[in-house]
Amino acid sequence: MLLGSVEAGGTKFVCAVGNEDYQVLHKTQFSTSDPQSTIKKTIEFFQQYPDLAALSIASFGPIELQKNNPHYGYVTKTPKLKWRDTDFLGPVKDALKVPIFFTTDVNASAYGEFVASQLYNEKIDSLVYYTIGTGVGGGAVLNGKILQGIGHPEMGHTFVKRHPDDLDFKGICPFHGDCLEGLVSGPTFDARLNIPGSEVSKEHHVWDIMAYYVAQAAIQQTMIIRPNNIVFGGGVVSEEFLVKVRKEFSALLNDYVNVPDLNKYIQMPRVKDNGSATLGNFALAYRVQEE
Amino acid sequence: MLLGSVEAGGTKFVCAVGNEDYQVLHKTQFSTSDPQSTIKKTIEFFQQYPDLAALSIASFGPIELQKNNPHYGYVTKTPKLKWRDTDFLGPVKDALKVPIFFTTDVNASAYGEFVASQLYNEKIDSLVYYTIGTGVGGGAVLNGKILQGIGHPEMGHTFVKRHPDDLDFKGICPFHGDCLEGLVSGPTFDARLNIPGSEVSKEHHVWDIMAYYVAQAAIQQTMIIRPNNIVFGGGVVSEEFLVKVRKEFSALLNDYVNVPDLNKYIQMPRVKDNGSATLGNFALAYRVQEE
Repeated sequence: MLLGSVEAGGTKFVCAVGNEDYQVLHKTQFSTSDPQSTIKKTIEFFQQYPDLAALSIASFGPIELQKNNPHYGYVTKTPKLKWRDTDFLGPVKDALKVPIFFTTDVNASAYGEFVASQLYNEKIDSLVYYTIGTGVGGGAVLNGKILQGIGHPEMGHTFVKRHPDDLDFKGICPFHGDCLEGLVSGPTFDARLNIPGSEVSKEHHVWDIMAYYVAQAAIQQTMIIRPNNIVFGGGVVSEEFLVKVRKEFSALLNDYVNVPDLNKYIQMPRVKDNGSATLGNFALAYRVQEE
Repeated sequence: MLLGSVEAGGTKFVCAVGNEDYQVLHKTQFSTSDPQSTIKKTIEFFQQYPDLAALSIASFGPIELQKNNPHYGYVTKTPKLKWRDTDFLGPVKDALKVPIFFTTDVNASAYGEFVASQLYNEKIDSLVYYTIGTGVGGGAVLNGKILQGIGHPEMGHTFVKRHPDDLDFKGICPFHGDCLEGLVSGPTFDARLNIPGSEVSKEHHVWDIMAYYVAQAAIQQTMIIRPNNIVFGGGVVSEEFLVKVRKEFSALLNDYVNVPDLNKYIQMPRVKDNGSATLGNFALAYRVQEE
């Protein structure tokens, strides 16, 4: 059986087909330009595979996920103006005529990490996935299902207690200033230090400050959802950084509730090379063709 | 059919029996003393009703809710030393021999509010219930089920951005200092102002400060769970206070995601006279006897 994956990011699209073992058979990528030509390229890639059984699209957001909403499958209030209020799912569905699962990029990554945990026989029920890159986002899987309320989560936009050495930094979120995204996304390096993140040494104190905030995101999840596992991916995250995050988390939690061994509880993605979303998409495509 | 409800609070126990329409038929209350005599009184109350079909216990915490844990049904690391590591569910189950649902006080209240929303035909899927009183706690219902990860939530112990007029207050949570509970629970009035909450005028600026923090709790839920509805109960909460909370929430959210009309989204309990947990217990008892 052939399963399809679209990772629709703000800067690039990655399209892939895989088999029932979730192995990638063919993959391509292209820049995100205007919706019409980008969606056209997406459709043309999958039209090469007339046996495609199902597809899952993991899109940048915000997107409309309520099936009873007339704009289900749309990209909605995105700052990418050309994509605002664009029907993404509709034209793909019309062209390919296969069952399609539609979700956010981080939801697909969370689901991919959950599937990987099952393949590795970790016996967990719930998992949160954060990406910390150009922006900050998060998705969760609870009892095997993607967490979904009246819309998809926007976990990067909660507020945190400010670090005493960072009180002068106003944060860069255009909506919230010093929400999590405004304090720890990749562009904050430039905003705080006037140098890009890639040039900031691993010893710089800014990593402690950012770890303090990311640890509070993990505290929020621990106190609200009580997941088995919290995964951090994205360009800002490294194992060295997570060592600092675990240390701050432990100090903030102060043994208040039981959590698993922190080296397992707070971790890098299981799936290497940013593959969590592709794996998640294949599994979601498999699921949608079964329904 | 007779259904039983135990609200096991840190200061008092409320036991009730009700019918299938969730009407209270008989109710009693007594002080929480040592576990043996308190549990004995609980059992004796229900032994008056040999037709009792099922029971639900909504307990102060922390409690063990993992059914595969040998301490399932225990009160665990509570500051009430006599109750620490006490088997609560076991002796009640042995004596009454009916199906028993065991959960936290706020989970039962959340479930009660959810049941009330269904009775009022509100068509919602998800709801968060916070109590702000002696402590701060929260529970959630998602797609009709109580949110439950590797343990019950401890929603009162997340961190928030501090209010500029409140930076000198260290907070009173013995574990976390200035977590939500440390900043907005009832005893914070005395700690901040040296006067009990009942004597603080409605015009006092402290209410704005507390509203700022409670609004951030609502932001956390909005960004992480995206519920249909957030209910605030407990002794600190009034409709006047929620007017302030909605104002702060609206400023912090800055229209980033769509939420329902704020007067409905952030609200006082539907069930009057602290009856949310009793209603929730009856409904959970009904559910457990069906299983």
